[in-house]
Formats: sequence, C-alpha cells, structure tokens
Amino acid sequence: MTSEGNTVELSGLTVGVLGGTGPQGRGLALRWAKAGLRVLIGSRSAERAVDAAGELNAAAGVDTVAGRDNAACAAEADIVLIAVPWDGHGDLLTSLREQLAGKIVIDCVNPLGFDKQGPFALPVEEGSAAQQAAALLPESRVTAAFHHVSAVLLADLAIAEIDTDVLVLGDDREATDVVRALADAIPGMRGIYGGRLRNAHQVEALTANLIAVNRRYKAHAGLRVTDV
Amino acid sequence: MTSEGNTVELSGLTVGVLGGTGPQGRGLALRWAKAGLRVLIGSRSAERAVDAAGELNAAAGVDTVAGRDNAACAAEADIVLIAVPWDGHGDLLTSLREQLAGKIVIDCVNPLGFDKQGPFALPVEEGSAAQQAAALLPESRVTAAFHHVSAVLLADLAIAEIDTDVLVLGDDREATDVVRALADAIPGMRGIYGGRLRNAHQVEALTANLIAVNRRYKAHAGLRVTDV
Repeated sequence: MTSEGNTVELSGLTVGVLGGTGPQGRGLALRWAKAGLRVLIGSRSAERAVDAAGELNAAAGVDTVAGRDNAACAAEADIVLIAVPWDGHGDLLTSLREQLAGKIVIDCVNPLGFDKQGPFALPVEEGSAAQQAAALLPESRVTAAFHHVSAVLLADLAIAEIDTDVLVLGDDREATDVVRALADAIPGMRGIYGGRLRNAHQVEALTANLIAVNRRYKAHAGLRVTDV
Repeated sequence: MTSEGNTVELSGLTVGVLGGTGPQGRGLALRWAKAGLRVLIGSRSAERAVDAAGELNAAAGVDTVAGRDNAACAAEADIVLIAVPWDGHGDLLTSLREQLAGKIVIDCVNPLGFDKQGPFALPVEEGSAAQQAAALLPESRVTAAFHHVSAVLLADLAIAEIDTDVLVLGDDREATDVVRALADAIPGMRGIYGGRLRNAHQVEALTANLIAVNRRYKAHAGLRVTDV
C-alpha cells in the first residue's frame, strides 16, 4: 500500500547495482529480479559479477540478471544503485561520472565506523555519502534510499515480505518517484519520500542505531513510518 | 508489547517536564498524567506552569499535575524531561546543574533550522543536544528519547493509542530502562533501546525528515521499529 498514487512504470528499465556482489547490493538485486526487473550486477571484477548474476538467476528462477564490471554496468543500466563500501565510494563515483551522467543514481551507502563501543557515524565533508555523490556526479540525478534494509532478510526468499519502509530522499521529484516505485516493487516494502538530499546524513547515520537495536534485541530491525 | 521484560516500577515517581508549557512537553505531561504518574510542569514563569498544570488536570481528569518554575521543578522531580526550545537549551541546563545532579534526565530537544527549503539539522558543537546535556550535567544520568512524538496527537485524547515507538538512547542501562518504561506507560507507544548517546545526533536530526514526510503526506508521522 502506498498512500500516494505512484504510477511510475518500471518495466523495460534495467537497474544496475554497483557493488552488486556485496550483501546489500546482492540482496536488493535478488528481490528486484524476483519482482520481474532486469538487473545488472556491477563489480570490480566482471568475472565475479557474472558469477553472482548466475547465482541470482538460479535463486530467483529468472534469466534477467547479468554481470558486468562496474563501468559497463553504469554505462548500460538506466538506474544505478551505489552499494559499495564507504571506503572507495568517492573514487568509484569519480571514475564513473561520464557513464552515470543523466541517470538516476541511488546511494544507499552508510558511512559508519566501529570501535569497542559499537558503530558510530563517520563525519563526511560533503555532509553525507549522498551529498558526496551529488557533488561528484553533477550531471546525474542523485537520490538516497535503501539504507536500513537488512541484507540477511533480503537474501532469504523464505521471507516473502520485507517488513520495512524505505525513506527516499532527493531534490528531483520525478527521480524520487521512480526510486519509491523501486521500493514498492519489493513485496512488503513501501517507498516513502523522506526529504531533501541535505537531510540524508541522519538517515545514513541512523543505521548505527539500528545496529544497536539488532544487538540488544537479536533482531533484523527495519522502520515503518506510521500515519502514512 | 515490549519484547524485553521491562519490570521498572514507575509508581511513586514524579516526572518533571522543563518547558512543560510548550506543545511537546505539555503533550507528554498529559499522557503521563493520564497514565497515573505524578507530573510537575516547569516553566520560566511559575504562574504559567500552575495554569498549564490546572488545564492538564482538567483534561486528564486527575489532580496529580502541579506547576513550578523550572528550578523548583528540577529540584522536586525524580526524573526530568528537557522539552525546551534548542535556543536556550544550554543556558537552562547550566543553571540547573545542581538541581539535576543524580537524576535521570531525558533530552528530547531537536536542534533544527528552517529556511525556504524546509527543515534541516543544525550543527551542535558537542555532537547533539543530548551530548550537550551530558557535558553540562556531569552528575546527571542523561538519556535521549521522545524526539519524534507528534505534539498534535499527544494533545488529542480522542486518540487513545499513540502509534509510534520511542528510541531511547543512553550509556546507563538502568536509566534507559526507566525511560523505556516511561514510553511504555503511554498506550500504543513502546520504548526501544536505540544506542549510546554518541549516536543521538541522527535521531534528533531525523525529525527534519519526519517533517518532510508530514508535509508531503499530510500526516503526523511516527516510527515503528520492525522485528522487535
């Protein structure tokens, strides 16, 4: 259920997942493939991307997932999810500026550090990973979303519905509508508009709190927005 | 429903609400009074505090709410909620260090700015309002909670249950357990441990995102933590 009529048409679009061999990217790729979308897995190594794509096709019972190196993934996809580790985020995006020009880019990266007391938010010069992406990709339509989705739950297809909402941030209304539709495409999830890109830091950093929740309650916590 | 057994006994405790004539403090005071707790409203003006207390007693059908100036409220209460505007937060706490010594303090203040593009998080030298409170009140047991609760919903007793979870942050386990119990005391709410105080900034700042949600969806958004 989405409270706004969101009539974005996703069929025919190819979603690229940079860092698609990592747990978060792989999990979202699996769910999108299962939902009938075409997915391109991107990785530093084309070979590993192709291997991951084969595994995802088998798991989802489809043949619509393919693997590429990150540059080819960015060039061929219509919409691109950035799901790489924070360390390396800036360098990768700088190298793909041309391939990502004109495209909707979804940043789901959480800049976190860990010490003996657990996770904490790292300071980011641009304010957030998403704002760094926007600064490095001036010709792309940068959004931020999918920060809090549990990779463990995504990977387990025995869990038919993912019980969480996805806050979608961005300054381009049409782009955030498309990204909300990508969240709505996964059973159980809802894409909820969550504000402008300048308010992305706290959404990224909140992942540290959800990790604290997971440790205390032995859970895979997600968030639902009430009254929407 | 709380997934942990939280057997904290609240009866006999008096909750002080500094800034209790403002919408957030007043709303929580109303719900706590309704739940059978003794509440002290604090305000710069004792007279306005007494007036507000009278209104809350009438609304809740109790006689357990009283009004004091902020200093007397802090001195008499067992647990103290800080619900003052961010502007003035530091000065007030500095002036009440002695009265608040040894007590559980709950900071619910959201340091936000507003411009033409809407709300945004203000930078705080100490990291967050809660960390500022901890720095200014070294002898208090500072926690952070109740940042996202809608004052509009709290004020409307026709709404029997408040559909939201409350993230409770702090470094003192016993203190966060008491604050969680204060959330659990309000029908519909659950107090969920949400991490250490150093992770308070993003919880405070997330209020900017919830305001964006409220504007887009014409809602009074709250948050539920799933899988807990």
